Amino acid sequence: MYRIDLNSDLGESFGAYSIGQDEHVIPLITSANVACGFHGGDPVVMRRTVDRCLQHGVGIGAHPSYPDLAGFGRRLLHASEEEVYGDVLYQIGALSAFARARGAALSHVKPHGAMNNHSFRDAVTARGIVRAVYDYDPALPLFAMPYSALKAEAERHGLPVINEVFADRAYNADGSLVDRKRPGAMVHDAALAADRAIRMVKEGVVETIDGQVIAMQADSVCVHGDNPAAVALVQALRQRLTEAGIAIGRPAAGQ
Amino acid sequence: MYRIDLNSDLGESFGAYSIGQDEHVIPLITSANVACGFHGGDPVVMRRTVDRCLQHGVGIGAHPSYPDLAGFGRRLLHASEEEVYGDVLYQIGALSAFARARGAALSHVKPHGAMNNHSFRDAVTARGIVRAVYDYDPALPLFAMPYSALKAEAERHGLPVINEVFADRAYNADGSLVDRKRPGAMVHDAALAADRAIRMVKEGVVETIDGQVIAMQADSVCVHGDNPAAVALVQALRQRLTEAGIAIGRPAAGQ
Amino acid sequence: MYRIDLNSDLGESFGAYSIGQDEHVIPLITSANVACGFHGGDPVVMRRTVDRCLQHGVGIGAHPSYPDLAGFGRRLLHASEEEVYGDVLYQIGALSAFARARGAALSHVKPHGAMNNHSFRDAVTARGIVRAVYDYDPALPLFAMPYSALKAEAERHGLPVINEVFADRAYNADGSLVDRKRPGAMVHDAALAADRAIRMVKEGVVETIDGQVIAMQADSVCVHGDNPAAVALVQALRQRLTEAGIAIGRPAAGQ
Amino acid sequence: MYRIDLNSDLGESFGAYSIGQDEHVIPLITSANVACGFHGGDPVVMRRTVDRCLQHGVGIGAHPSYPDLAGFGRRLLHASEEEVYGDVLYQIGALSAFARARGAALSHVKPHGAMNNHSFRDAVTARGIVRAVYDYDPALPLFAMPYSALKAEAERHGLPVINEVFADRAYNADGSLVDRKRPGAMVHDAALAADRAIRMVKEGVVETIDGQVIAMQADSVCVHGDNPAAVALVQALRQRLTEAGIAIGRPAAGQ
Repeated sequence: MYRIDLNSDLGESFGAYSIGQDEHVIPLITSANVACGFHGGDPVVMRRTVDRCLQHGVGIGAHPSYPDLAGFGRRLLHASEEEVYGDVLYQIGALSAFARARGAALSHVKPHGAMNNHSFRDAVTARGIVRAVYDYDPALPLFAMPYSALKAEAERHGLPVINEVFADRAYNADGSLVDRKRPGAMVHDAALAADRAIRMVKEGVVETIDGQVIAMQADSVCVHGDNPAAVALVQALRQRLTEAGIAIGRPAAGQ
Repeated sequence: MYRIDLNSDLGESFGAYSIGQDEHVIPLITSANVACGFHGGDPVVMRRTVDRCLQHGVGIGAHPSYPDLAGFGRRLLHASEEEVYGDVLYQIGALSAFARARGAALSHVKPHGAMNNHSFRDAVTARGIVRAVYDYDPALPLFAMPYSALKAEAERHGLPVINEVFADRAYNADGSLVDRKRPGAMVHDAALAADRAIRMVKEGVVETIDGQVIAMQADSVCVHGDNPAAVALVQALRQRLTEAGIAIGRPAAGQ
Repeated sequence: MYRIDLNSDLGESFGAYSIGQDEHVIPLITSANVACGFHGGDPVVMRRTVDRCLQHGVGIGAHPSYPDLAGFGRRLLHASEEEVYGDVLYQIGALSAFARARGAALSHVKPHGAMNNHSFRDAVTARGIVRAVYDYDPALPLFAMPYSALKAEAERHGLPVINEVFADRAYNADGSLVDRKRPGAMVHDAALAADRAIRMVKEGVVETIDGQVIAMQADSVCVHGDNPAAVALVQALRQRLTEAGIAIGRPAAGQ
Repeated sequence: MYRIDLNSDLGESFGAYSIGQDEHVIPLITSANVACGFHGGDPVVMRRTVDRCLQHGVGIGAHPSYPDLAGFGRRLLHASEEEVYGDVLYQIGALSAFARARGAALSHVKPHGAMNNHSFRDAVTARGIVRAVYDYDPALPLFAMPYSALKAEAERHGLPVINEVFADRAYNADGSLVDRKRPGAMVHDAALAADRAIRMVKEGVVETIDGQVIAMQADSVCVHGDNPAAVALVQALRQRLTEAGIAIGRPAAGQ
């Protein structure tokens, strides 16, 4: 029986600023990566987002970022291992309090934006992230891309890993994502994206941008809820996955 | 047998900025109120402060503030109950993660600066604070001044209260502190301050600025570590309390 | 010949967060109050907003706020006169640099949100604002409500004042706005709001919520561009004013 | 007649946090690089710092930084050219308002910390900085290190450059500073540092860490005021320079 988790970045509104289609995307996914205040999400938003996740039985994950609200956490900041460790642990704790206040617990951690990208190759950043999650709870699953330094570091610590894949992004031969600025980086065709997701789940492989077929373990697919069109794509993907005999559900980490 | 807790506000350094005499005052106190990033304290500082508290067996308390680094949390911000609730819960969670990473847990919560002052009279703010602490852990003690709305609200929720008193501040007849700007607001004489502390502990009363004697339950005395002179005052107070037959130790909340 | 300025708060987007209908409202108004980074508006947004104002010949005003991005500057912060002075001067300077980079200059200053509201009655806040504007440029007009402490303080300094009125808000007998939470505080009927604006311009009076008619000098009417409906209201107001023989144009301050 | 400017980074206190020996170092220098709020310096501090500079006839320079108070502007942030442009223009404007309020004007701009370091080699960052200064005032001098991309970009725009050198840092053969972490990066001997400064001023050369002698144009030497010992070093340097027949005074830019 095939199975896949659908995860999405959520809870990114801040104060008077509203962003994303959280109320529409939450019912469609199984894992939410909830902003923790450093790139988006203030305490009032975090509380509301946690409540929405609980209403729909969606896993509540911390989505820690560099401290960069102006850059939405998308800009690389040369932080030390201790700074990354502290920033990640701080944000995990902050979000977990809102879950705990509702009798719930965090289901996972997924680094946000530039921190996540940097941890694909940078072992120092990966170590800061992994140590923070591990010190908080050595059984708390960490989302990581296959082939990443982050995954390697998590495995070294024995921290459970959820392999995250992208259906709408092209891959390089080393398992990294093709830079968004390059032609062909994005898979705009929804049917093709669904086919790629299905193949990753069923066959455990993906075709890279230069035509190679590489192994690609898929526990969770990242989907987007930025606008109504994005939400429609998630609905379409769900249907295609279901038709292909793939169950949609929370991941079983570390397998 | 008489007993008193000594608490102090700590961990208020931030980035390149160093403030306070934490390394000297921590060995002298029994409860630390640790800044959580909103008025001072960044994640690296929080980690170091938690470690220092653990080394000396000092209770680790969250010291949540309005989000006002520029004002050091000393300026009243007209936040709603939901904003206070969210800000306090967020900061409790953030600090608790650093304690948890060391296998420890928070010992208490004490609101900082203007939020604490405002909660003496403002029931809305008091309720936001109390609900946040209660929702996080209904057994987690809250520092509150006798006669305060904060104490009343905590008792209404059944949240354990640690009665906090000030040896170096004058009291009004309603149990509030005399405004710092008024003459006689500060008790500068160390011996007199010690005498006041001893009387509060042993007799449960304090003399107000207008000469009345009012009941003043004392579970914890607030002391300061802003500079070497302040640290010397803490040492002197410890000695006077001990000589008066008062044990210095962590509070037993809610009695 | 009757004449009125239309002003609106703009440039409040921040980083990834977009807010307001600036591109639609700027062509309809004559004075823009541009966020300066403390409640909204980052440097990239400020530059873009200044450029848009210049394209449409709209006056560029600084819209300084308390430092409170999370609260969008709508929460009262108990800042000292020196803090208000510094915050206002800082923001005026920041915005003026973007105007200067385009060979332009600021046309006015209007305090934002809670700072503006507080300066209606609080002379300390009013003085901090007025001194900052005056020290920057004693000929730079300040938007102020008739009957406000802000206006009185500006007149004491000889700073030019632009009398700002609200067509869609009810007034108290002392010239202050009726609290939004009270029934009747908002004038929802567009035709009635236009009639009130026309009367203020032509007759210099307004009817208060309790039926009195008080003098109300109107140099500029505040309009909103929060959403498409609000923009439509501005268009309707422009038409009504024009039909009533009132020219819409930049204010002549201090008259 | 030989001549050199002494510059120092100042005004970096923030809110309750005090840093640096501004009151002692300002009388010893001729150009101050004043923090503008992004890595240090709040509006109240900026005002005080500008006043101190004016009292001592010290040039007031803007010292813009990446927005990173937690990292004191010392961490590289991957900002776009437009973000750098906006951040620098914003900070120049903010500081200039405090100078203008005292009837003064800015004397120069010097990028802070990681932004300055990055602009040694990164042409995009250099261009963002140079365009911001140029758009604000094409006659406003920019501090730049000889051989830097920043200097090259400034010269391309015709922006006046003040060549900044470091007496207490070792140089690489390409004119860059040796990384602080490498052995020999710092010149700890005060006499040797003074000799290096004198040689740069009189002969226009410096000996690199690998023994080469390279041209090094020196208009201004950077000195530090972090602590009393640093201030003593500045006094010693002043004396040595004077004894060597070098006048200490504001730079004549762009020569």
